[in-house]
Amino acid sequence: MTATDWATLDNAGLLTDLYELTMMQAYYQEGLFEPAVFDLFFRKLPEERNYLLAAGLDTALAYLENLHFPPEAIDYLDSLGTFSRDFLDYLAAFRFTGEVRAVPEGTPIFANEPIIEVKAPLPQAQLAETFLLNQLHFQTLMASKAARVADVAGGRSVVDFGARRMHGADATLKAARAFYIAGADATSNVLAGQAYGIPVSGTMAHSYIEAHDSELDAFAAFAGLYPETVLLVDTYDTLEGVRKVTELAERWGDRFRVSGIRLDSGDLGELAKGSRRILDEAGLQDVSILASGSLDEYAIRDLLADGAPFDGFGVGTHMGVSEDAPFLDSAYKLVAYANQPRMKLATHKVTLPGEKQVYRVRDESGTYARDTIATAEEPPLNGTPLLATVMRDGKRLSEASPGLAAIRERACAERNRLPQALLELEPAEPYPVAVSDHLQERTRELRQRLSPK
Amino acid sequence: MTATDWATLDNAGLLTDLYELTMMQAYYQEGLFEPAVFDLFFRKLPEERNYLLAAGLDTALAYLENLHFPPEAIDYLDSLGTFSRDFLDYLAAFRFTGEVRAVPEGTPIFANEPIIEVKAPLPQAQLAETFLLNQLHFQTLMASKAARVADVAGGRSVVDFGARRMHGADATLKAARAFYIAGADATSNVLAGQAYGIPVSGTMAHSYIEAHDSELDAFAAFAGLYPETVLLVDTYDTLEGVRKVTELAERWGDRFRVSGIRLDSGDLGELAKGSRRILDEAGLQDVSILASGSLDEYAIRDLLADGAPFDGFGVGTHMGVSEDAPFLDSAYKLVAYANQPRMKLATHKVTLPGEKQVYRVRDESGTYARDTIATAEEPPLNGTPLLATVMRDGKRLSEASPGLAAIRERACAERNRLPQALLELEPAEPYPVAVSDHLQERTRELRQRLSPK
Repeated sequence: MTATDWATLDNAGLLTDLYELTMMQAYYQEGLFEPAVFDLFFRKLPEERNYLLAAGLDTALAYLENLHFPPEAIDYLDSLGTFSRDFLDYLAAFRFTGEVRAVPEGTPIFANEPIIEVKAPLPQAQLAETFLLNQLHFQTLMASKAARVADVAGGRSVVDFGARRMHGADATLKAARAFYIAGADATSNVLAGQAYGIPVSGTMAHSYIEAHDSELDAFAAFAGLYPETVLLVDTYDTLEGVRKVTELAERWGDRFRVSGIRLDSGDLGELAKGSRRILDEAGLQDVSILASGSLDEYAIRDLLADGAPFDGFGVGTHMGVSEDAPFLDSAYKLVAYANQPRMKLATHKVTLPGEKQVYRVRDESGTYARDTIATAEEPPLNGTPLLATVMRDGKRLSEASPGLAAIRERACAERNRLPQALLELEPAEPYPVAVSDHLQERTRELRQRLSPK
Repeated sequence: MTATDWATLDNAGLLTDLYELTMMQAYYQEGLFEPAVFDLFFRKLPEERNYLLAAGLDTALAYLENLHFPPEAIDYLDSLGTFSRDFLDYLAAFRFTGEVRAVPEGTPIFANEPIIEVKAPLPQAQLAETFLLNQLHFQTLMASKAARVADVAGGRSVVDFGARRMHGADATLKAARAFYIAGADATSNVLAGQAYGIPVSGTMAHSYIEAHDSELDAFAAFAGLYPETVLLVDTYDTLEGVRKVTELAERWGDRFRVSGIRLDSGDLGELAKGSRRILDEAGLQDVSILASGSLDEYAIRDLLADGAPFDGFGVGTHMGVSEDAPFLDSAYKLVAYANQPRMKLATHKVTLPGEKQVYRVRDESGTYARDTIATAEEPPLNGTPLLATVMRDGKRLSEASPGLAAIRERACAERNRLPQALLELEPAEPYPVAVSDHLQERTRELRQRLSPK
């Protein structure tokens, strides 16, 4: 068994909050097996995000298809002294048999729009809460951050360098995939390359240079083995390092095929300009300059605005932990049980009850103009419905797995249809999201019924 | 195979940056197999941290012991067209055979102090960079955050509620363990409970209440099944919810054994005071009050300073992503090769060359007073040496695995020896960390030798 698809590993079912299981047992004892509907959505966007890019559905569906409790999981639960034999037997035979409607990966979404709607017997839909949130939250978080980086890079290459400072091993895989969906060109993470077929890329580290007696020896050895490599020039003195690259070019003549240099420290903008001059004077116009080191969309914007001649960016930590907004206000809320709409009333956290559909309307130029969140039952409104059925009777529908290349293309096409202001780094006027009359009416009625007399 | 110990899964070896493997191949081709020493350390502490709490060594050693490349990993690498048959054969037979010195988990550490030192043939020590950083960085990040939360809670219970918004699946496990080391009492994460033997804990969700026709029915059903449970009272109106708990107590008399209530929204401080009054007036002094919802060490401090009568805290997102400092400035740097000290000179990123030891000195009261980073070769300095050998010839030494309970006790005892100012939430004067004369001299000499003439 390999480490790649965590969701399908044997005890992934235990990756849940204890209360999901205690509530399940209560539902089981009380006979509450009627269909429940849970919406997974983001209550509001961080100030630093004008839209979110949906990601993670593939993992979510893999998890639901594989969700089960092997004997060692049952034994552990038994050891807690909280669960009855009956209920443990029920868990041992457990499979997810519900239906899932979802927004395709790579779709821009906004506050309060369900990204996924799970409809299943109450205990099943409840159990899935923790894992679905964990994955859809994180992957959407990563895709939403990387979309900004890719946008600001404006066609220059963006490579994920984040594995070393992301939060744990699973994060490195899921983030690499989400970044690729959002427009990153490659990842340095070899396992992500194997798992998802994402192009892998990399240069060299300072340690390689330091292990050699001289920087020039190191450059020569590495370029000898990898003729089109990128050489890291800032181990001792950046511009001196660049001059050694030109020395190598002179020495090697036509044999010299080094494709680029990488700057990883210091005043990147000034050093890039100096490096470009040195390379150009040596006739090395084709050698590109890559930047890395504490980069994010803001730093890249500033470098490019200042005219720094960078051709690509290795982006690590700040993208990898979504440093300016390291989490989203995600929620997984019961919106219907036994065919009755449900909601929570507590201050500032009102949810929209019942099954829903989101309609997205374009203006005459094809740009997205507004969304309406509606009930799933009302006659279709104007616009394209975003939620489609992706799983029925616990089995993924084939159209729910378009493949990574198609998802990436979709994300690109979808973002091109967003109003320009949403693609800027600065906070924009929020994209208009309305609630249909029918859904407003339902919300009002239910609130009245539930409010303390 | 189970999902618990990621480090030992079959293709964990591929979780590395591509350049580690291309550099390895270059070392292999060039015959650079001499022993290399890499230090893993944190260049500086975030402003919001007065100390870091070392964590993650157990995962690091499990990874090194199990590091290998199964056939499917070799096949994937072969498909990249970058690696020679010879080198792939070398990888297929690869095992880590080096030595590791490390600071025990649960030890407070400061800027530039090696948390782990890996000494192995250069290709081996290079390969391990990405995974070791990924795990030691993240687990130390989590332990360091949770220590602050536990401190400010002052003995009240702290429960990890973070799984749903942590970054991926592996993060939820490693964070739960790191939190427990740092003083958290339990986790809601069942898989972490199974994996590490951490106590698991949980209450109920709003969805449970909403699935019932009335809040009182829901309380009665849940407390019927779990007599000593904690009831969530803020689904509709918090103080009304508390009154329903007292109603249940009155109705049930001696049968009522509910241990607590949980407040998850609204003005937590005011609602806690109101809830306490209602409970006390009903004679329910023994029913405790737990808080959750966007808590961190700052919020808990403010609540307690305001006299909010909370007995415990469920802490989720802000601790789970270390929201105020979501990454550390970690580094894994070559400090020696072929028994010669090595270093990088680029601006602001100077490393201390050679193998090292850190000595920690106490004052007469037993409080830690200062550290000195020294060469490993010089005669021992005053104080307790922090780095000890934990792996030899690729095999973990038995004393390197003290068990989670011992690590947790150590962390507690060690933190009690820190100067009080470091335990406060506010930035303190940095703890004094000196560099020994010998190490300063070595650094100076090497810098001179390496500087461009």
